[in-house]
Amino acid sequence: MREVFRHALPTELSDSEEAAIKSKLDRLEKIISEIKAGKGNRLKYVAGKLELRTREEEFINVDPIQAAGRLTLDARKALISYGDGYSVCDNCRKPFRLDKIKKPQLEEFHAELATFLGMDAARVVPGARRGFQAVVSSLVEKGDIVLLTAFSHYTEFLAVEASGGVVREVMGDEKNIITAEAIAERIEAIEREEGKRPALMIIDHIDYLFGNEHDVYGAGKVAAEYDVPFLYNGAYTVGTMPVDGKAIGADFVVGSGHKSMASCAPSGVLAVKDEWVDKIFRTTAIKGDLTMRSFGIKEVEMLGCTLMGAPVITMMASFPHVKERVKEWKNEVRRSNRFIELFLKVKGSKVLSEMPRKHTLTKVDTTASFDVIAKTHKKRGYFFTSELKKRGIIGIFEGATRDWKLNTYGLSDREIEYLGEAFIEIAEKYGIEVE
Amino acid sequence: MREVFRHALPTELSDSEEAAIKSKLDRLEKIISEIKAGKGNRLKYVAGKLELRTREEEFINVDPIQAAGRLTLDARKALISYGDGYSVCDNCRKPFRLDKIKKPQLEEFHAELATFLGMDAARVVPGARRGFQAVVSSLVEKGDIVLLTAFSHYTEFLAVEASGGVVREVMGDEKNIITAEAIAERIEAIEREEGKRPALMIIDHIDYLFGNEHDVYGAGKVAAEYDVPFLYNGAYTVGTMPVDGKAIGADFVVGSGHKSMASCAPSGVLAVKDEWVDKIFRTTAIKGDLTMRSFGIKEVEMLGCTLMGAPVITMMASFPHVKERVKEWKNEVRRSNRFIELFLKVKGSKVLSEMPRKHTLTKVDTTASFDVIAKTHKKRGYFFTSELKKRGIIGIFEGATRDWKLNTYGLSDREIEYLGEAFIEIAEKYGIEVE
Repeated sequence: MREVFRHALPTELSDSEEAAIKSKLDRLEKIISEIKAGKGNRLKYVAGKLELRTREEEFINVDPIQAAGRLTLDARKALISYGDGYSVCDNCRKPFRLDKIKKPQLEEFHAELATFLGMDAARVVPGARRGFQAVVSSLVEKGDIVLLTAFSHYTEFLAVEASGGVVREVMGDEKNIITAEAIAERIEAIEREEGKRPALMIIDHIDYLFGNEHDVYGAGKVAAEYDVPFLYNGAYTVGTMPVDGKAIGADFVVGSGHKSMASCAPSGVLAVKDEWVDKIFRTTAIKGDLTMRSFGIKEVEMLGCTLMGAPVITMMASFPHVKERVKEWKNEVRRSNRFIELFLKVKGSKVLSEMPRKHTLTKVDTTASFDVIAKTHKKRGYFFTSELKKRGIIGIFEGATRDWKLNTYGLSDREIEYLGEAFIEIAEKYGIEVE
Repeated sequence: MREVFRHALPTELSDSEEAAIKSKLDRLEKIISEIKAGKGNRLKYVAGKLELRTREEEFINVDPIQAAGRLTLDARKALISYGDGYSVCDNCRKPFRLDKIKKPQLEEFHAELATFLGMDAARVVPGARRGFQAVVSSLVEKGDIVLLTAFSHYTEFLAVEASGGVVREVMGDEKNIITAEAIAERIEAIEREEGKRPALMIIDHIDYLFGNEHDVYGAGKVAAEYDVPFLYNGAYTVGTMPVDGKAIGADFVVGSGHKSMASCAPSGVLAVKDEWVDKIFRTTAIKGDLTMRSFGIKEVEMLGCTLMGAPVITMMASFPHVKERVKEWKNEVRRSNRFIELFLKVKGSKVLSEMPRKHTLTKVDTTASFDVIAKTHKKRGYFFTSELKKRGIIGIFEGATRDWKLNTYGLSDREIEYLGEAFIEIAEKYGIEVE
């Protein structure tokens, strides 16, 4: 029906357009009555060869990276209205920059984002990785050292590689935790051996490998003490748990929209302290050598504007819910631990992440439980994910039965019980001992 | 209703969930009967404080940058299904890269994109600007010269600025056209005066200022002759008219998804010739110094994966339509010229772009027509856009009555006539002479 209106004259619908609307309304009524009668055919393709995606509607999805990026209802509504290309640019006025647009409320949203993260200024970026890139590109010259950790995400490495920087890692302790002491020691060792300190350190609050919590507050103190700029990677925290950048002692906070803020990919946020605004969000100084053209207040690292439609509108629509949900983090952690409690009833199953869980992302090891079955099952490891799928559970890497990850973010108590019981049920079916 | 299913157990709906679905279905039936009866209230907000966006349904939108970025019906459908965060990553398998995903058909789509542009390899990027950045960052060292033109888009300047390069411009001729001769002359002058050739030249096929067509085929010959790598900027052409990169002589082709490929922002494509694949799409070589971790075939300039959801799914869903619509380019140009014919009937109105029009984006000058009225009208320049809006026409910069741009892309013959007549009607209303 929208498509009919999109091609109609603004004055009125023609007879054939009226008829098309009528026919669509009739079809919709028919669909409703079919649903009510429990009849009707399932749609296979949503458009062309693209299959309908019903992962979130039909399954409990525990995919390690997808859980907190699911759109809220409001984000899905906003997306229907604001999907078109440059949809948020309808009222772009001087000085022509995304974060200055007043309608929809992008300017206000940017200010709120900064406040939400306890920082002074914020910009939206096409994914956390583009936030790393902006900071690294601003601070790191060829040969400069960037301090990462043994658990750093690959996109941090790539940002350093793109700038010609050199990576030095901090190792975790016996529990795979990055401590403040280890960071300080490595900085001292680097200075001793290489005659200079890192130009930047990037510490992930929660790492993607184990979902362990690292000592970012301690890192903030070390950063201040050794005068090393500190980028806090909140890809797994910004949007799921409360994050106060200044309290942490971060110079930069990066978050991911599609990982943890219930937003379309690619989206993210880069927030900085006042003292860094002029460096990271520096405006263009380049000029045409003949025309002498210059380009106002466009920011070099942002390449002007960043998310001109779907991703930023979903970030905005989800934001009021995101602000509320971070207050519920304790319950998310409680439910994560409750799931693990059920999961560990299956003998031989282990947790590789720190215990008790402080996050909803967990790495487990089922080598001594489900993998034993996989060894002789005709479907091999696929028996396991197939059994889970039969029970409406999806998101665990297909065929994995040794070590694998899952994320329980957003599941209700009822879903957590169901999920935990499913593992027990499968174990019992295959004769694995259950406690 | 989807939201109910999203929180339900996979087994069955509870009584309260069944009731919620039933109540939603009843509400939907009520809405349908209201529509049929011509009653009901207009929705103001789509989510929270976000106003419903109906620009495309209620108006003829001639916004210079929005026209060819409007989603197709299939793209809007795909978006409803694939809005969630990492939606296209459900079946991401080794080697874990966006362009290798088989379901949905991202691998196939990437191959088709390259073919469509007459190039060898293609990647999707978060906007054309990120395509410029990838090429510039790969080829341009500090102090290197990049050849742009007097009409180059600011994002090209910013990409050069970010890499520490230096810009040299080619000026247009008396008709504001960049000719092959002018490009060759400037390259020679640069070599003479600065002792080196440009490391890269970027030529916009159609510029954003006038919508003029520049001699990109000639530019391709010059590029080959002087051995300067040539980036063809097709932000206004890829997705609207046929583009054959190799026939043009381009080393790199960049297009914009949200500007010309009926896709969500930020999206775009970067296509390269075989000989450039190893340079532009080079895979990571960096390693953790203690863990010795390395990161497989992730591409440095892409920072791994780029568009993991909404933008790429809309590009894919629109793509079959985009492939068809570029064949209709001649008709788009014919309609653009028909509009201009009507527009010029208003005495004093002028066209600043080249004539006859070769594109649907046009810059006009109404200083001697509508601006004369604006001078004494109590609404000033807003009288003009307000009169247009009354007639259901939107997208011309609010308040502009001197020089301004519009884009007729995608309008039907009927809409073109309506649009042209509207200008005549307004002129007549205010006593401006009409031919």
